[in-house]
Amino acid sequence: MQFHHHGYVSGDPRVHEAAGLGLDRAVDLPDELDVLIVGSGPAGMLLAAQLSQFPDVNARIIERREGRLVLGQADGIQPRSVETFQAFGFAERITAEAYNIGWMNFWAPDPQNPRNIVRTARTEDYALKISEFPHLIVNQARVLDYFAEAAAHGPGRIVPDYGVEFLGLTVHEEGEHPVEVRIRHVAGERAGEERIVRARYVAGCDGARSRVRDAIGRKHLGGVSAHAWGVMDVLVNTDFPDWRVKCAINSEVGNILHIPREGGYLSRMYIDLGEVAADDNHRVRQTPIEDIIRHADEILHPYSLDVRQVAWHSVYEVGHRVTDKFDDVDVDQGHDPRVFLTGDACHTHSAKAGQGMNVSMQDGFNLGWKLGHVLTGLAPTALLSTYSSERQPVAQQLIDFDREWSSLMARKPEEISDPTELATYYLGTAEFPSGFMTQYGPSIVVGDAAHQGLASGFPVGKRFKSAPVTLVADGNVVHLGHHARADGRWRVYAFADRDGSALEAWASWMASPGSPIARHTPAGADVDAVFDVKAIYQSGYDEVDVTTVPAVFRPETGPLGLRDWEKVFAAGPTVWNEVDVFQERGLSRDGVVVVVRPDQYVAAVLPLTATDELAAFFAQSLLPAR
Amino acid sequence: MQFHHHGYVSGDPRVHEAAGLGLDRAVDLPDELDVLIVGSGPAGMLLAAQLSQFPDVNARIIERREGRLVLGQADGIQPRSVETFQAFGFAERITAEAYNIGWMNFWAPDPQNPRNIVRTARTEDYALKISEFPHLIVNQARVLDYFAEAAAHGPGRIVPDYGVEFLGLTVHEEGEHPVEVRIRHVAGERAGEERIVRARYVAGCDGARSRVRDAIGRKHLGGVSAHAWGVMDVLVNTDFPDWRVKCAINSEVGNILHIPREGGYLSRMYIDLGEVAADDNHRVRQTPIEDIIRHADEILHPYSLDVRQVAWHSVYEVGHRVTDKFDDVDVDQGHDPRVFLTGDACHTHSAKAGQGMNVSMQDGFNLGWKLGHVLTGLAPTALLSTYSSERQPVAQQLIDFDREWSSLMARKPEEISDPTELATYYLGTAEFPSGFMTQYGPSIVVGDAAHQGLASGFPVGKRFKSAPVTLVADGNVVHLGHHARADGRWRVYAFADRDGSALEAWASWMASPGSPIARHTPAGADVDAVFDVKAIYQSGYDEVDVTTVPAVFRPETGPLGLRDWEKVFAAGPTVWNEVDVFQERGLSRDGVVVVVRPDQYVAAVLPLTATDELAAFFAQSLLPAR
Repeated sequence: MQFHHHGYVSGDPRVHEAAGLGLDRAVDLPDELDVLIVGSGPAGMLLAAQLSQFPDVNARIIERREGRLVLGQADGIQPRSVETFQAFGFAERITAEAYNIGWMNFWAPDPQNPRNIVRTARTEDYALKISEFPHLIVNQARVLDYFAEAAAHGPGRIVPDYGVEFLGLTVHEEGEHPVEVRIRHVAGERAGEERIVRARYVAGCDGARSRVRDAIGRKHLGGVSAHAWGVMDVLVNTDFPDWRVKCAINSEVGNILHIPREGGYLSRMYIDLGEVAADDNHRVRQTPIEDIIRHADEILHPYSLDVRQVAWHSVYEVGHRVTDKFDDVDVDQGHDPRVFLTGDACHTHSAKAGQGMNVSMQDGFNLGWKLGHVLTGLAPTALLSTYSSERQPVAQQLIDFDREWSSLMARKPEEISDPTELATYYLGTAEFPSGFMTQYGPSIVVGDAAHQGLASGFPVGKRFKSAPVTLVADGNVVHLGHHARADGRWRVYAFADRDGSALEAWASWMASPGSPIARHTPAGADVDAVFDVKAIYQSGYDEVDVTTVPAVFRPETGPLGLRDWEKVFAAGPTVWNEVDVFQERGLSRDGVVVVVRPDQYVAAVLPLTATDELAAFFAQSLLPAR
Repeated sequence: MQFHHHGYVSGDPRVHEAAGLGLDRAVDLPDELDVLIVGSGPAGMLLAAQLSQFPDVNARIIERREGRLVLGQADGIQPRSVETFQAFGFAERITAEAYNIGWMNFWAPDPQNPRNIVRTARTEDYALKISEFPHLIVNQARVLDYFAEAAAHGPGRIVPDYGVEFLGLTVHEEGEHPVEVRIRHVAGERAGEERIVRARYVAGCDGARSRVRDAIGRKHLGGVSAHAWGVMDVLVNTDFPDWRVKCAINSEVGNILHIPREGGYLSRMYIDLGEVAADDNHRVRQTPIEDIIRHADEILHPYSLDVRQVAWHSVYEVGHRVTDKFDDVDVDQGHDPRVFLTGDACHTHSAKAGQGMNVSMQDGFNLGWKLGHVLTGLAPTALLSTYSSERQPVAQQLIDFDREWSSLMARKPEEISDPTELATYYLGTAEFPSGFMTQYGPSIVVGDAAHQGLASGFPVGKRFKSAPVTLVADGNVVHLGHHARADGRWRVYAFADRDGSALEAWASWMASPGSPIARHTPAGADVDAVFDVKAIYQSGYDEVDVTTVPAVFRPETGPLGLRDWEKVFAAGPTVWNEVDVFQERGLSRDGVVVVVRPDQYVAAVLPLTATDELAAFFAQSLLPAR
């Protein structure tokens, strides 16, 4: 963590220095603003945290509820989300308070006595084999707390406007702030007042019953199945030995997905309530908690539950819906979008695979920097069209995966020939629920795969998978990817050739007038304000002299003109690190440039000599500097 | 982290439920109280955080300064301190913002050109070889912030009374609150007012010029050497390649101890200003910062410093003093102490070995639980006499070590025959500066070593060295010692025999009327309120049924009577854990009981069959339950 860049900092380094609108942010929601975020769920809160890193952008987040969320439904945190938390600065804190999924166990009817369940498989959870980050369970309310803190402590000092309801919007063809939004204050001094606010952009993060979606006329396609589930967060005493292990329980009388929760004691159970009659008309949603508990108890036989407290419960029918497009502009309309949909507002599905909150956060992460770049004049408005084109297919994949997984979970014992089949499926598909299967196609922010062979372990369009390297300046082992904070900057990783001569030539070019740095960095800004350029040498850290590497890797920035010592890394082994990133990620020993987007996706893989191509790539999504 | 013990918790789990005095703590410093802590340095703040875990004890902490410390001198954090932070709940947070010492490098005159320095050795820092915790550098101000948070968020809700000066005290022979303390409000509404407050106990944590020490007539023995050092925290640009590595630099014109700081950019330099003339009369302390910088520049030749900001600087002569006894009672006075000294109030030395803050914190950790136990009626007042008898020898060892280390650091090149000698000394003595050499002698809270052979890796009197085990309930690998929070409880680790039969017999006895639990746990309190009893089996975690282990290992506690699932561990290997604690710590396969104090020191090692001895051990330092 670096933080004395503007002079000595004595206090909490997680509180960034205020800047721009954050210096004196208006308490009241203004009449005109840049971005109005509707809804403070995971996507909306992440967006707020991200836009707080662009303090000249006037972004606000409205939420009908009067304050902080107390009980959140979602709780599954895939490794990709923990990786994202790391970029926002709170991974280590939330991990310390979360439940860590080490195993997933499977239960099925005892062949000798089918009325009893027995454990049929113990399966290691996939997380630690796929990522350096764990697979966690923690209440959505806490995730929102941490993002709210990041938003409030970012330079823009964004705090939610609670007690403000979205009523509707109209997108005008003209004007600086073309989105006219009708809102109502439902709490506070102005309670009852209806107003109009005008925004440049609106993000609809307002959940499955999104009014923003309705306002732009998008359709939520799909439907609700005839299968109902009860869900409860309960504090119990029980003789069920796997109370603290994630389990899929398949019994003669129904199924349970059982997920231990953070804090000990607490677990969540998804209890199969079976097929719903055609004429049920959602009456199943009125199922009393006592019935749900009784059914859980029957499924767990011969074990039983003594429920001491029900923290939360609900009943729902599994639905699978996805919105056809995630913004307000059809392809042939020829202008760029003004309104975006994220999270449950554009994709809803079962909770079984623990995906919802995670995919929603990635929606926000995808959209945030794009809005930031466009609104600060860095990028053309065309960048915003990539949001829907990148995220809509991801949502469709999610729906497909979830439909398969939730059907598997709801099978009857007689439909299951191999009791280990579910376990095998769980492990075989692990990369998807971990959040690492997303791969964006070519666009102005994703290059082609022509040079993929130079860096086989960094597939273009997938998220940059970190690896341990040595920070040359202090000899500490660090995760290369963890230096990439959610600060809206592009990362350019220059992996050196054997003797460093090609790297040196590349670095000279990067410091020259024709380079992306010169073309796209605003006048007066720090040289690394848009591009965070790092070098990774093949040699041991003690063979690199950090004081004589090319100047682009040791910029002097900030009001004191201090040299940055943390942009030069070495891949060679040390007593603290056995991993060689060149070998681990299949990198060419002739060197390679890996370009990573602000949301951590690999945008381009190029030879060190392909300077024209690199310049051309950035010229698509960045404007000439003001 | 467990936290739903009293029902579902939605908010920050680090904020404990208020209890006792914490429910409605008076804003004003009361006229009568249990413990008055004088001074909010590391020892005092830790004491406050610890006593906040005893919410029925009325403890307050006064500090002359008007608010939070902004610039702290100390910054070296040994692994033992990080271990302590873990017990107070903030190790992962402070580690994330600290500088991690991976290496220590040594520089000396170039034999070819002695006016230049050259690097003579790179030495791996000792920390990770000795402990699972790192060796950190972080500003004392941040350490205090975290302890202040722990004090404010503990059940007792203790916050410092800033702007209150200690003037003097008198210990009376009689009365419930025999320590009469004169204070003056120097800030706030009552500024200028002098008052008397009466305390049962006073902790003097008021630094090297301690007025509490003077008030009880203790002498600070030792003296100041004739060797002066300048110290500065600076933001610089430099071509010195080890600016971000801890270094000992020995040049023809003087010596530097160079320590990179948290946050990047910043480093601290201790600069040798040489011998001071006999008639100097501390004039050296007036040395201007420009002279110190110039001297540093000369020492670093051929490298140079371009100082952009001086965050802090000072000049001092090395002193080595230790107070003869750390409380107000001489051995032959026959009554128990009322006033205690901690930290710099009773031991001062050079800053060179980075020990001061660390040893001070252990003073506070040693004293805190003892005061808590005595004041809640758990323990006899005789327990308090062990504070000075345990901590005074530790301070003496520290002075001896520091005297040797700081002389080695101040040698001239011609006094050094072997340039690697300093590096060798550094590594050879590493366990001491890591904080793990402290070993308390036998007392009412440290047993004898008669059965040490049953647990050779847990030396009686030394701190309990954690090891990874598997939590049976969820199959996660956890550090056994990290479950021991600074909550004032005794830990009893029952390591099982091969087939568990001896453990079962021991557990039955622990649940019987003659056991320490029955004798010392207050009526109405949870069964684990005084003794946190854990079982560690030799087998794989999947061979232990956590629902049928002896009841003492699965107590039902709290208002909901919830079963605790986190007291049963397994040593057998899993895919996540290769370490077998029995092998790693030399534990008898016939089982062994290891008793650990609330401040994490091993108090006793006994066979599972030695139940009478265990009962007798606790009867020395715990009273029969009320």
